[in-house]
Amino acid sequence: MRLTILFGGASFEHEISVVSAITLKEKLSSFELSFIFCDEKHNFYLINPLKMKATTFSHGDYKKMPQLVLTRGGFLQKSLMSKKKHTNVVLNLIHGADGEDGTIASVLDFFCIKYIGPRNDACTFSYDKRYTKYLCESKGIKTVNYEVLSSNEHKNMTLDYPLIVKPATLGSSIGVSIVKEESQLDYALDSAFEYDNNVLVENFIEGVKEYNLAGYMFNDEIYFSIVEEPQKEEFLDFEKKYMDFSRSESVLKADISDELTVKLKATFEKVYRELFEGALIRCDFFVVNGEVLLNEINPIPGSMANYLFKDFSKCIENISSELKTPKSIKVSYDYIHSISKAKGK
Amino acid sequence: MRLTILFGGASFEHEISVVSAITLKEKLSSFELSFIFCDEKHNFYLINPLKMKATTFSHGDYKKMPQLVLTRGGFLQKSLMSKKKHTNVVLNLIHGADGEDGTIASVLDFFCIKYIGPRNDACTFSYDKRYTKYLCESKGIKTVNYEVLSSNEHKNMTLDYPLIVKPATLGSSIGVSIVKEESQLDYALDSAFEYDNNVLVENFIEGVKEYNLAGYMFNDEIYFSIVEEPQKEEFLDFEKKYMDFSRSESVLKADISDELTVKLKATFEKVYRELFEGALIRCDFFVVNGEVLLNEINPIPGSMANYLFKDFSKCIENISSELKTPKSIKVSYDYIHSISKAKGK
Repeated sequence: MRLTILFGGASFEHEISVVSAITLKEKLSSFELSFIFCDEKHNFYLINPLKMKATTFSHGDYKKMPQLVLTRGGFLQKSLMSKKKHTNVVLNLIHGADGEDGTIASVLDFFCIKYIGPRNDACTFSYDKRYTKYLCESKGIKTVNYEVLSSNEHKNMTLDYPLIVKPATLGSSIGVSIVKEESQLDYALDSAFEYDNNVLVENFIEGVKEYNLAGYMFNDEIYFSIVEEPQKEEFLDFEKKYMDFSRSESVLKADISDELTVKLKATFEKVYRELFEGALIRCDFFVVNGEVLLNEINPIPGSMANYLFKDFSKCIENISSELKTPKSIKVSYDYIHSISKAKGK
Repeated sequence: MRLTILFGGASFEHEISVVSAITLKEKLSSFELSFIFCDEKHNFYLINPLKMKATTFSHGDYKKMPQLVLTRGGFLQKSLMSKKKHTNVVLNLIHGADGEDGTIASVLDFFCIKYIGPRNDACTFSYDKRYTKYLCESKGIKTVNYEVLSSNEHKNMTLDYPLIVKPATLGSSIGVSIVKEESQLDYALDSAFEYDNNVLVENFIEGVKEYNLAGYMFNDEIYFSIVEEPQKEEFLDFEKKYMDFSRSESVLKADISDELTVKLKATFEKVYRELFEGALIRCDFFVVNGEVLLNEINPIPGSMANYLFKDFSKCIENISSELKTPKSIKVSYDYIHSISKAKGK
């Protein structure tokens, strides 16, 4: 199968997208892969697969590779003598801003390029943690208690300590702090507001059980990965999370009851259906007194959570086989015609 | 002031966008306007302002005008001899799909083009009526009771008749029906499902009082239009709504109490803040027993609801003056560098 991996992006998670792409080169070695890199200025480059290593990007060597521009149906490579259009299905592997905030989804939709990844609406509800809360409230999915602060607000916190403070829109633990007492709050808020105008403050549940579950839709059914109990420190800092994005070895199934597995899957399905079709996502859950709480939706998980699936290549093939061609709308001028006619023009 | 009006789009509301643009040509005659038309294939054309009339589009004459392509910072006009970049602030006047669903917002953001209009998140919450309900539920804004049906569901309606059936994502009354008794329901659902995979069914409140209010943010304050009580038939059909998009004459202020005006404005502000900055929107409200219910958010109202403002040109100038340049994110390769170093490479 042919597949183009799109990675990079103007995002604080740019580097981990590079690492994810390098990891998938190995994991999808049975595919005919091509690689398109999006730099911080939103220029696209076609990367020679043999040069898919971190230093190609950190040293700027990618700039010597062919540049591409967006065109209807694909990425266009122009040279003095010829034009070539790259029309493979795209796997959107841009983590964070651009990739997960709906920008790339909309751009690919606008240019009628088929892609694996969350659609625009799905991005809105997963990229901004405030909107994940809205989604959960409306779908009856439990989450941790929270408050939202805006940069110009000085609100008295009604939540009990300890707290966890998060910028509303960043992943990979950037700008996140745990606050054990009030004296630490201001510093934590300042750190978070450096990255975002909105900050989410949640109760921090010490020693909470965490479980990750990935999945995708095929044939109107959700195909689930194994449930993983992630190894955890107090929480993952950026460096540890970064290493996490290069994971490719299978992990062990969490040792949990069938009843809990069923609950986790049912909650995943509530999140996924009617919103995440076309994407392989990972949901991170907390379990408190046997009750499942959604912590986070990763609509483009690090290295696509390949390590949670037995046959990862098959997952990508399955999603790809069901991608729909954007509905083309035939515009009409019926009313303008009828009015012109009435006016005798 | 220079301003580019972007209109058209691959949408069922393509025609009314053309009408809106023609109306604004008159209303903003003190501006130095240019016009960019997006056709159903997503090609862009620079329209000669003298040719801004309906037949230019319905007869296909626009195809003879210069074609433009998106580039970083503007729309590029290439000819054999020269290149010209159009870099004005854009007024997104594409109604319905493309313009109001987040696609154009994301595309303009991606290409770093400043625009008046709803951002991507704001589009998600206003374009799909299901997500408007989520927003209202989370912000404590009242709406009419509803149920959502998907095309593959056969649910027993728990709502009492009469009902109003609406495709989840279309504006301008397309696919909307009022259902007075159960025998009419199937036909109404079929009509709505022709346009969308999701349908909203709401209680239809006969003779309900309706009020429209538009506004925008400037200097951290909301600037409101007058409150209008729209002339109504049972509900606006597409042809009447179409005429509505060419409105340019001021209307009379609704005859309502100060108390109700305050309530309407407070609800508008709850909807607008932290979401619709950069846009001039119109909210359509119902009032039932003195209680304000949000019916609909129009993030790009017909002819920008110009007829509700005393000095419409000033509104556009104000919004334009506060548009932010997209934050440019400087990507770093710190971790890749540190890892390469550790490996001695």
